[in-house]
Amino acid sequence: MSGEEPAIGIGEIREAAERIRPLAHRTPVLTNRSFDQAAGVRAYFKCENFQRGGSFKIRGASNFVYSLGPDKARRGVVAYSSGNHAQAVAIAAESVGAAATLVMPADAPRSKVEATRAHGAAIVTYDRFKERREEIGRRVAKESGAELVPPYDHPWTIAGQGTTALEFLEAEADLDALLVPVGGGGLLAGCSIAAKSIKPDLRIFGVEPELANDTYLSFASGLREEIPMPATLADGLRATQPGAITFPIIRRNVEAILLVSEDEIKATVRFLLSRMKFLAEPSGAVAAAAVLHGKLPAGIAKAGIVISGGNVDLEELARY
Amino acid sequence: MSGEEPAIGIGEIREAAERIRPLAHRTPVLTNRSFDQAAGVRAYFKCENFQRGGSFKIRGASNFVYSLGPDKARRGVVAYSSGNHAQAVAIAAESVGAAATLVMPADAPRSKVEATRAHGAAIVTYDRFKERREEIGRRVAKESGAELVPPYDHPWTIAGQGTTALEFLEAEADLDALLVPVGGGGLLAGCSIAAKSIKPDLRIFGVEPELANDTYLSFASGLREEIPMPATLADGLRATQPGAITFPIIRRNVEAILLVSEDEIKATVRFLLSRMKFLAEPSGAVAAAAVLHGKLPAGIAKAGIVISGGNVDLEELARY
Repeated sequence: MSGEEPAIGIGEIREAAERIRPLAHRTPVLTNRSFDQAAGVRAYFKCENFQRGGSFKIRGASNFVYSLGPDKARRGVVAYSSGNHAQAVAIAAESVGAAATLVMPADAPRSKVEATRAHGAAIVTYDRFKERREEIGRRVAKESGAELVPPYDHPWTIAGQGTTALEFLEAEADLDALLVPVGGGGLLAGCSIAAKSIKPDLRIFGVEPELANDTYLSFASGLREEIPMPATLADGLRATQPGAITFPIIRRNVEAILLVSEDEIKATVRFLLSRMKFLAEPSGAVAAAAVLHGKLPAGIAKAGIVISGGNVDLEELARY
Repeated sequence: MSGEEPAIGIGEIREAAERIRPLAHRTPVLTNRSFDQAAGVRAYFKCENFQRGGSFKIRGASNFVYSLGPDKARRGVVAYSSGNHAQAVAIAAESVGAAATLVMPADAPRSKVEATRAHGAAIVTYDRFKERREEIGRRVAKESGAELVPPYDHPWTIAGQGTTALEFLEAEADLDALLVPVGGGGLLAGCSIAAKSIKPDLRIFGVEPELANDTYLSFASGLREEIPMPATLADGLRATQPGAITFPIIRRNVEAILLVSEDEIKATVRFLLSRMKFLAEPSGAVAAAAVLHGKLPAGIAKAGIVISGGNVDLEELARY
């Protein structure tokens, strides 16, 4: 990719929505009085934890794989991921009969590894603290001739993730704010493009764990700050630097990056399960955590929250 | 109630749907490939665990309370319940400013007791093994002049519960079968009336725990058999005898009562949580358990499953 920002607009996102329709679910939007009372706003939850593969990642992965065309897809695909993107790439590849190789950290949640393997993908593991997954992914791609499916920093991926906000605003047109978890920024960038196009005055917030605040720091400095590998429980948000493509989009469209603590994330996962009866993974719960713990600025009556995924081992869940 | 069966038809159920609209959610219908692969059928889940109060009970309770009219409602309402009906009556009463008294077993799940109290209801507890809740409920009603809201055996309650199937078939018109949990039979009776009216060839099944098989035994003998207080984990299905009004409706409309073991219920709660990312309480999971464990007869391609509720303590959940 050159330094020039590629054009991704609502047109690309609407095309992506058409392209991924055979594979991705249209997930429900839920509401809950207990949450509203506790948070002091009316909250709407776009539940990507009910998505194919258990997270929003199928949107970007399938938009990418389907955009490749049959000749390129036939040579296979490869991806590096903490789990959800891997699973999504495996499902998207399987749906067109393409071979998939996934580069996953050795300590990824077991449920994610197993779910990926179930879709016929080959899995290569690496040490998250010693090796760089990007390099391993590129090497596999080079050796096999397979196409690398970027987890966030590509226009096709970003356009696919943006379909989340497109559906959300079709279901709930009059939100005041939209809150989206931020790892590499693909979901936030895509959603911000869709949202600003459909409803220019919508206030958009990214949410990160305090322990993985690379986008927060970058937002403050205006530069793509890099942090050491973060130890957050939110394993899907452990990117160490915003993307070269995602970051300028986020800077332009997003009002602020909100931070949540590990305890706030855990308490929110518990709240969503016990009161709203759905399972969000820690990464998937950060936007809800921000609203539940009063991180929104004043003046917002109706908040749209993206629950980005629900893949968490029940054994891990039982611990908190 | 006299022995004569009151007329409850699709008209009453459609009226109930209009009446309860301000209070009850239209719950989503979810699907999941993992479940389908494991069960060998295409399954559709009507998720009443996302309903107001965490279960379908709000449908019958609000239809009853709203049907009373303002003069009677002003004198207050009383109900006896293992928890979900109590919570629903509290919410329905609160919504019209009526006082509610709830008679609950002393060992009801804590989450249910707390949720009921949060809606301003007065709570009277009793010993499930020594006292009869019906008598306590009637005594409170007599002493206070409040109206007793029957948990299942009343036309208004049954019509309210039937709105579940009405919505389900509006969302998924071409189901082959409908599976509904059975306690006292209000949900099954109401759903069977709606379903048979909309789609006469739909095959309807009730599902009970093996340990609480009063409707199964009654279905076999043709008489309303009574069993000792059952020890099933499914605390919402511990009724000891089918209702006088519900049972004839069930006999007429239902093909069979399917039974599931306690282990099958637990395994299903785990499956729904880990794979489908939602929380069903044991009572709410029995219909899914029947499909997942091969209890359906042959010839059914598309099965509609009612997940009737999701109120379970996380501490209890962590135990299995």
